[in-house]
Amino acid sequence: MKNQPLKIVIVGGVAGGATAAARARRVNANAEIILLEKGPTVSFANCGLPYHLGGEISDRGQLLVATRELFQNRFRVQVHTGYTVDTIDRAAQTVSGHTLEGATFSIAYDKLILSTGSEPLRPDFCNVEANNVFNLWTLDDMDRILSCVKTPECRSATVIGAGFVGLEVVEQLARRNVSVTLVERLPQVLGPLDAEMAKMVELELVRHNIRVFLNASVSKLHTTDGKVSTVQLANGESIATDLVIVGAGVRPRIELAQAAGLTIGQSGGVAINEFCQTSDANIYAVGDMVEYFHGVLDKPIRVPLAGPANRAGRIAGSHAARPSSSGRMSPVQGTSIVRVFDLTAGITGLNERACNLNAIACRTAIIQAPHHASYFPGAKNLTLKLIYSPESRRVLGAQAVGAEGVDKRLDVVATLLHFKGTIDDLAGLDLAYAPPFGSAKDPVHNAAFVAQNDLDHYPRLVASNANLEGQQIVDVRNKAEIEKLPLPDAIHIPVDEIASRWEELDPAKPTVVVCHSAKRAHVAASWLQGKGFQTVYNLSGGMSIRKLTE
Amino acid sequence: MKNQPLKIVIVGGVAGGATAAARARRVNANAEIILLEKGPTVSFANCGLPYHLGGEISDRGQLLVATRELFQNRFRVQVHTGYTVDTIDRAAQTVSGHTLEGATFSIAYDKLILSTGSEPLRPDFCNVEANNVFNLWTLDDMDRILSCVKTPECRSATVIGAGFVGLEVVEQLARRNVSVTLVERLPQVLGPLDAEMAKMVELELVRHNIRVFLNASVSKLHTTDGKVSTVQLANGESIATDLVIVGAGVRPRIELAQAAGLTIGQSGGVAINEFCQTSDANIYAVGDMVEYFHGVLDKPIRVPLAGPANRAGRIAGSHAARPSSSGRMSPVQGTSIVRVFDLTAGITGLNERACNLNAIACRTAIIQAPHHASYFPGAKNLTLKLIYSPESRRVLGAQAVGAEGVDKRLDVVATLLHFKGTIDDLAGLDLAYAPPFGSAKDPVHNAAFVAQNDLDHYPRLVASNANLEGQQIVDVRNKAEIEKLPLPDAIHIPVDEIASRWEELDPAKPTVVVCHSAKRAHVAASWLQGKGFQTVYNLSGGMSIRKLTE
Repeated sequence: MKNQPLKIVIVGGVAGGATAAARARRVNANAEIILLEKGPTVSFANCGLPYHLGGEISDRGQLLVATRELFQNRFRVQVHTGYTVDTIDRAAQTVSGHTLEGATFSIAYDKLILSTGSEPLRPDFCNVEANNVFNLWTLDDMDRILSCVKTPECRSATVIGAGFVGLEVVEQLARRNVSVTLVERLPQVLGPLDAEMAKMVELELVRHNIRVFLNASVSKLHTTDGKVSTVQLANGESIATDLVIVGAGVRPRIELAQAAGLTIGQSGGVAINEFCQTSDANIYAVGDMVEYFHGVLDKPIRVPLAGPANRAGRIAGSHAARPSSSGRMSPVQGTSIVRVFDLTAGITGLNERACNLNAIACRTAIIQAPHHASYFPGAKNLTLKLIYSPESRRVLGAQAVGAEGVDKRLDVVATLLHFKGTIDDLAGLDLAYAPPFGSAKDPVHNAAFVAQNDLDHYPRLVASNANLEGQQIVDVRNKAEIEKLPLPDAIHIPVDEIASRWEELDPAKPTVVVCHSAKRAHVAASWLQGKGFQTVYNLSGGMSIRKLTE
Repeated sequence: MKNQPLKIVIVGGVAGGATAAARARRVNANAEIILLEKGPTVSFANCGLPYHLGGEISDRGQLLVATRELFQNRFRVQVHTGYTVDTIDRAAQTVSGHTLEGATFSIAYDKLILSTGSEPLRPDFCNVEANNVFNLWTLDDMDRILSCVKTPECRSATVIGAGFVGLEVVEQLARRNVSVTLVERLPQVLGPLDAEMAKMVELELVRHNIRVFLNASVSKLHTTDGKVSTVQLANGESIATDLVIVGAGVRPRIELAQAAGLTIGQSGGVAINEFCQTSDANIYAVGDMVEYFHGVLDKPIRVPLAGPANRAGRIAGSHAARPSSSGRMSPVQGTSIVRVFDLTAGITGLNERACNLNAIACRTAIIQAPHHASYFPGAKNLTLKLIYSPESRRVLGAQAVGAEGVDKRLDVVATLLHFKGTIDDLAGLDLAYAPPFGSAKDPVHNAAFVAQNDLDHYPRLVASNANLEGQQIVDVRNKAEIEKLPLPDAIHIPVDEIASRWEELDPAKPTVVVCHSAKRAHVAASWLQGKGFQTVYNLSGGMSIRKLTE
């Protein structure tokens, strides 16, 4: 045993720091481990904040998952809350800073783990003297919002930003019977999803009486008596409100790392290797402040989410405390999920837009299927969009929206993405089936089958929002369906009559076959193709998706 | 176009045959496709039968998923029900047989797809003249059981065989307020699971007032007035009963294939290649009658389940109708799942017993974790057992039992098994996390972490049922836990006192650290190991699992 124990200093408890501390202790009983946190608590369940706001998590104490006592007694970690680190002296291997009480400190380290996290962006319009404009980032933020929400005058709220946390806040405020308006700069909610998938979430918000403003920039917050009373949009509209919550994204807290000369990556996070070491091998970094290698995009990106932060914390803690430790950070896929009232929506890997932006060739399949056997009571429809490479057949990403079973399908595809699997791998997965849990052909199988048909020209898909002008459009739905949702200029032949009536059609004309969900259209289109039609397409996702793109 | 269209004959609608027919049509509009089914319906939802028995699927019509009209009108498949094929003439490429009405037929084929399925085993004790002894295999079986169950005299039932279908039947009979006794030859329910996992299911059955007899062979069924009145066990016990349902396993229906000289594999199913071709390239076989390549066992086995049957049907239908088709059957992992009252239990890959039987070196980790964030309301405990190779670190299988989220974890591991992933892959998966759906560290991550600790000696696990005699046993639970479930001969040091009291222990003695679920024991054991204790083990799964093994 060395005379001087290894000294590990961790800066920041949230976003992986606390995990790193606990892990370091478990692989090294003799290290001296010091956790410096500028806030009042070692760590807290930040993903739970919205749910206490709405009262779904009724006990605030539930959010304090990692207590000082636990860290001190069980893990023998010296915890200093209210300690802000201001500088790192890499040559001397010390961190210096100040305490909440104004004292200064300087602490030596052998290994330093940075977990300074991120902070919410505050757009210019937030620069207003008002006591009812908030971010939701800390326990303190949550407490202040909650005390505002609980006043009888608070009847309406405006949430600015329709990202994952924004939507959680919307849902939870609605639970409190606050009338909620959602304002989003983009033309859709949930920026990480493709537009047609996000549309389903938007409709769910509207169904729950949320007023949704898209393509809407906030130009000014008007105040009355020290409170914002009106949110003014750039298009001139104004929204009366008793409360404003801004969820405009986050930025990594990298100032400390940057000042110490650590390499910052292209995406704006601290660059780390697979052991979570920064450009200084004695300094690790984890969580929202770093960039992780994205397994599909094949380059580092920032992923300010709890999952990667926790895994990185474990890797960093292991390696700092015992350099022989074999743990390595796996690539991320940017998997994320949100519940919005009765719907769940999520994504793993790349969306179609990201593929286009990064010049990655992709095709997409979109299907609707019951989340478990259709004949078993309670089956609910799930929409799954699969993104895949036409050359390698590799799956590039998936998005899912539905009432049940969304998380399972995302996790299956996320696991497949980890291994760079193809649509053929997906089609062949041996998943758990009994009627209450799935179908002999699971929705992920169905999506893979549709993708296989597309790439194998059995027949090809055409995008759900494609311009159909000049095509021979064959609508194989039944009459009632067509009356409910008409498709102009289509020739109507119900699917079960295609085999007897296909000769009514012109085999030389480019043909698009359409039904409700692209299943029957596949039967009809493959028939026409087999009968020698020159160019036959199946409208991807059918009318049920096309109506979301208009 | 050829003058003579390709002629595809399919024998058997269930277990993949109907899927093959529909798929063949979609890749070949010009083939002649004939489906011969000896039963009265093209196909039916056989996995749904138990659920109609209990009334959970109230409408019998829901089980008739594939109608004759659908196949004839939409897929242009000639459907002949009541047609039994008796012989295959491979040289002449014809099948011959007889109809229900006694007529004979002979039909030529270019490609033949066999889907003759399996049939329930009927042990000797079934040879009894009685009208209340059933298997549950066909719609007809179901109808007959149901009419028996609905008589007011039917107050008690005995289910013989505690496999997946047996347990579904037990659950559904209990739903009908029938008093149910379950009889099983093996020392546990659910043979595919390891004993401690199956024990949880057994306790759930008992909790729902099912009488469970294990290690129990039926020696005789005693009849009174043409009905079985008593089930006599080999140990002398006898069970009064109004109804007997036998679920003693199935055997593949291979007589037709065998008589035609097709190769039968070692496991007793028809041997097929990755296109589902038998030893005769013009004859395909799918479903319960074949053997599939098992991706972990690295050899073919029989898997009489709907999932593989459907996937194989699709592959066979594609390849028979269009030999250039690229689809290949992926290896299976034997993934299966069952709901038993408020619990779900399932498996993917190999269990510990199968590893031992096949001389595959394995170690196991068993964890308990909430199915979603512990601080979010409704979190329910899930037990996950992971089997992995100590040499390659490859995951060999997983079993899960719990109230919620079991299917998701099995599907994640099944996907990982498809790619022959390791415990390190599992630890690094980027899964979908928000409080209602999981935890930043999902149960599958936790299981992988425990396995990593085991293989990396941080510290080693010892089996939950290990003989602890002669070891220095350190119980780090709190007093209340110990009083509730004592562990004799243990030294009691609560986990949070280990760091101050470890010197009370003898570092030279082989030491086993124990807590409720092996989490706190990991903290304490790693501390002792770090302090120079010679041999330290963590009791796998802790007392919560050990109590299931006694």
